[in-house]
Amino acid sequence: MPLPTPQDPNFAARCRESFNRQGAMQLIHASMIEIAAGYCVVEMPITPSVSQQHGFVHAGILTTALDTACGFASATLMPADSGILTIEFKVNLLAPAAGDRLRLIGKVRKAGRTITLAEGDAFALTTVAGVTKEKLVATMTATNMTILGRPAVKG
Amino acid sequence: MPLPTPQDPNFAARCRESFNRQGAMQLIHASMIEIAAGYCVVEMPITPSVSQQHGFVHAGILTTALDTACGFASATLMPADSGILTIEFKVNLLAPAAGDRLRLIGKVRKAGRTITLAEGDAFALTTVAGVTKEKLVATMTATNMTILGRPAVKG
Amino acid sequence: MPLPTPQDPNFAARCRESFNRQGAMQLIHASMIEIAAGYCVVEMPITPSVSQQHGFVHAGILTTALDTACGFASATLMPADSGILTIEFKVNLLAPAAGDRLRLIGKVRKAGRTITLAEGDAFALTTVAGVTKEKLVATMTATNMTILGRPAVKG
Amino acid sequence: MPLPTPQDPNFAARCRESFNRQGAMQLIHASMIEIAAGYCVVEMPITPSVSQQHGFVHAGILTTALDTACGFASATLMPADSGILTIEFKVNLLAPAAGDRLRLIGKVRKAGRTITLAEGDAFALTTVAGVTKEKLVATMTATNMTILGRPAVKG
Repeated sequence: MPLPTPQDPNFAARCRESFNRQGAMQLIHASMIEIAAGYCVVEMPITPSVSQQHGFVHAGILTTALDTACGFASATLMPADSGILTIEFKVNLLAPAAGDRLRLIGKVRKAGRTITLAEGDAFALTTVAGVTKEKLVATMTATNMTILGRPAVKG
Repeated sequence: MPLPTPQDPNFAARCRESFNRQGAMQLIHASMIEIAAGYCVVEMPITPSVSQQHGFVHAGILTTALDTACGFASATLMPADSGILTIEFKVNLLAPAAGDRLRLIGKVRKAGRTITLAEGDAFALTTVAGVTKEKLVATMTATNMTILGRPAVKG
Repeated sequence: MPLPTPQDPNFAARCRESFNRQGAMQLIHASMIEIAAGYCVVEMPITPSVSQQHGFVHAGILTTALDTACGFASATLMPADSGILTIEFKVNLLAPAAGDRLRLIGKVRKAGRTITLAEGDAFALTTVAGVTKEKLVATMTATNMTILGRPAVKG
Repeated sequence: MPLPTPQDPNFAARCRESFNRQGAMQLIHASMIEIAAGYCVVEMPITPSVSQQHGFVHAGILTTALDTACGFASATLMPADSGILTIEFKVNLLAPAAGDRLRLIGKVRKAGRTITLAEGDAFALTTVAGVTKEKLVATMTATNMTILGRPAVKG
C-alpha cells in the first residue's frame, strides 16, 4: 500500500524544528538522523544515565526515542498547520538493550485523515574494531492522531 | 481475585534497592513513594527537561516512570533471588500531561509463576493555593516475566 | 473520574438493536445481559464449536465477545446519530478459558469527543451443584472512535 | 535477523493437524492455506454470519483468524512435543473489512526459547471480473509462549 505524497513540501524542516523543541530529546541525547516521507530515524547513545537496575537501557527511555521516531514518521504526512498526538502505543521488548547506541526507525504503515498507524524497530548497535553489529531489541506499533485547530497542539 | 502473599518477606527493601540502581530514575528525578505487595507508587516532577514539542511531558518519559511502577508492583511478588524483565507494555494516552508532577500507580492484576500482568495509571497533579487536583492522563498494561538463574538479570 | 451523562436518553434501546444486527453475535450465541451508561455485560456459552486445539475457548472468539462488550459500553455515551469503530484493542490472556460460559464486562475508562477508552474483563463461569464460580481469564483495553456523518457506519 | 531452523522436521503436518482440531476454525469456515517455517496463511470467506452491526466483518472474528495465523507461524519453530499459548495480542484496525474473503498472514519476528513474537496482517480480498484486489484492513502483534510438560496444552 503506497503512502500518500506529503501535503506539506516543507515537512522535513518542520519536523526537525519540532524535534529540537523537545526537552526530552536533549535529556537522553537523542538526534534525528533521517527524516523522509513516512520515515524517521533517531539515534541515542547508551550510557549509565539511561539504565534500569541490570544496566540495560530502561524500556521507557528506549520507548521515548522510539515513540519519537514513529511520531515524526507520521508527522511528515500531516498538514503543515497540524499538530500530532499519540493516542496509544505498544512495545514488545525482545532482548536486553546493551551496546554503544540505539537506532530507532519509525515507518508509517497506514496514513489516514485522522488516524495514522506507525511501526517502529529499535536496534542496539555495538562497534568493535570498526565493525558495527546491530541487534533488534524492541518493536512498537503506535497510533497517532492529526490535530487541527488546537493552537496548544501544533507542530 | 486475591493476590498471593509475597514469597520474599524482604521485598520492600529489595525493590527500593533495585529502584535506586536505575540511572534512568535519577535522570527523570523519579522517587519510589510507596511499595507494598503487588503495588507501587512512583512520582516525578514535571519540568521542561522531560517535555515534548508542545510542552507536555513526553509520552515516553511518562512511560519510563509508569513501567517502573508496574515492574516493581510485579517484583514484590517474585522470589528473592529472581530478576524481572518486561516482555511488553501498552500505553493509552488520555490527555496531555501537564501540571506540577506525575503520580504513577502500578498494581498487579494476576501473578503467575512465570508471567505477571500489571496495570498502571498515570495522574498529573497540579497544586494551586495548597489544593492538589489530579487528572488521569495515561494507562498501561504490562506483562512482566520472572527470571531465575540468570545472574545478569537479578534484582 | 466520573463519566459524562449519556447524550442519547435512548442509548439502551439503540445499543440492543445494534447488538442484534450482528451476525457474529448469533454465530457465537452471545447475549447482551446488561447495558448501562458506560457499561455493558455480554455472555456466551462455552461449547466445542468455539474451541481452539486444546479444547479451551479460542482467544479470538473470546475477543469477539469482549470487544463487543467494550464497544457497546463506549457506544452508550455517544450521540444518537453516531456510529462507532474500534481503532485498536489489546488482549492479555491470563488463563485458559474453560467452563460453562463466559461473562464479558466492558467499562468506559475515559469518554472523549472523538476517542473513548474502554476496559474489559472476561470471566469463565463454572456451575457445580448450583454454585457458580468465576475465574478471570482475559483483559482488554480498547480504543473506540465516534463516527459522525458516515451513513455506512451508523448505529 | 534470520529465523532458526525448525526443531521439528514434521512441523507442517503437526500444525495442520492441530488447526483441524479447532472448532472455532470450522465455525468461521477458515482454512490453512500455507504453512512454512515461521510463516502461516489462513483464509476465510466474508459472509453475513461473521458481521458486526454495519455489515463489516466483526473485529473479533477477524482476530480469531489472524491470531490463528500468528500462532501457527510461531508453532512451526517450537519443539514437536510442545504446546503453545497466546499471552497477549494487539490489533490495529485500519479499514472496515468488506469484500469476498479475508487473507491472514502470520510471520515470526523473533523466536525465543520461551517467548516468540509474531506479526500478522489481515487483507480483505475482492474479486471483480476475475481480478482480485486486496486491501490491508488490520495488523496484529502477538506474544506466544512455548509450553513444555503440560499434557493439557500440547500440539
